[in-house]
Amino acid sequence: MPEFILDNRLQADCHNLHKMELCDLLLMNDNRWPWLILVPRIVDATEIHQLNREHQTLLMQETVLVSSALAAVTGCEKINTGALGNIVRQLHVHVVGRNSGDANWPGPVWGYGERQPYQGDTQMRLMNDMRKRLA
Amino acid sequence: MPEFILDNRLQADCHNLHKMELCDLLLMNDNRWPWLILVPRIVDATEIHQLNREHQTLLMQETVLVSSALAAVTGCEKINTGALGNIVRQLHVHVVGRNSGDANWPGPVWGYGERQPYQGDTQMRLMNDMRKRLA
Repeated sequence: MPEFILDNRLQADCHNLHKMELCDLLLMNDNRWPWLILVPRIVDATEIHQLNREHQTLLMQETVLVSSALAAVTGCEKINTGALGNIVRQLHVHVVGRNSGDANWPGPVWGYGERQPYQGDTQMRLMNDMRKRLA
Repeated sequence: MPEFILDNRLQADCHNLHKMELCDLLLMNDNRWPWLILVPRIVDATEIHQLNREHQTLLMQETVLVSSALAAVTGCEKINTGALGNIVRQLHVHVVGRNSGDANWPGPVWGYGERQPYQGDTQMRLMNDMRKRLA
């Protein structure tokens, strides 16, 4: 059985936030939105419908846990979730906190403008708050 | 208990395709992509994490059923799924078949250009093929 290796682009654009039963949880290094990514540690998975039933249910449960925590921590108006994978084919699920008037609101975050890396300690505070909620 | 009523905008932009245990399945009337929408018949739901655990699992199972069927029927290269709700707040999950070079590829479908209603019998063939798969 080959070992699971996180996609290079996800590794370059994100920070490791938390390890869950099925998924690695990442924080996108982009201060325009609080943007998390769940990556199931399943080798060669590209579509949710390719996972077995147990993993599908676990992926839903972990996505929901992360969504609730992100809503609580940020007080955002809306959660946007999505699994696209048109560029990075390794299966990954986005969970993004959205607010009226944020970048590209009410449009989607994907493919919009340039990533703006975090400065200062904002990112560390968000990561600490999320880790406390998910502990 | 108030009755579930499909959002006006979803009703205007879509055709009813199928009734599932939890969700109404709609076809977006836009020939740029094969684009389906699952709407859980739960009054006032706006976020997946607000559903109870049973409904979350059922929503995942129905999303997976629809994704597999759409991939089989269209032979598309990639499935894109998402729950955004920044405009239409009634909880709904998109399942879209994508192919290299389609409109806005590899960007998302949401918020891109103008909807192009189906002409002729393409839409009826897609709906019939999907209904056969889901029966």
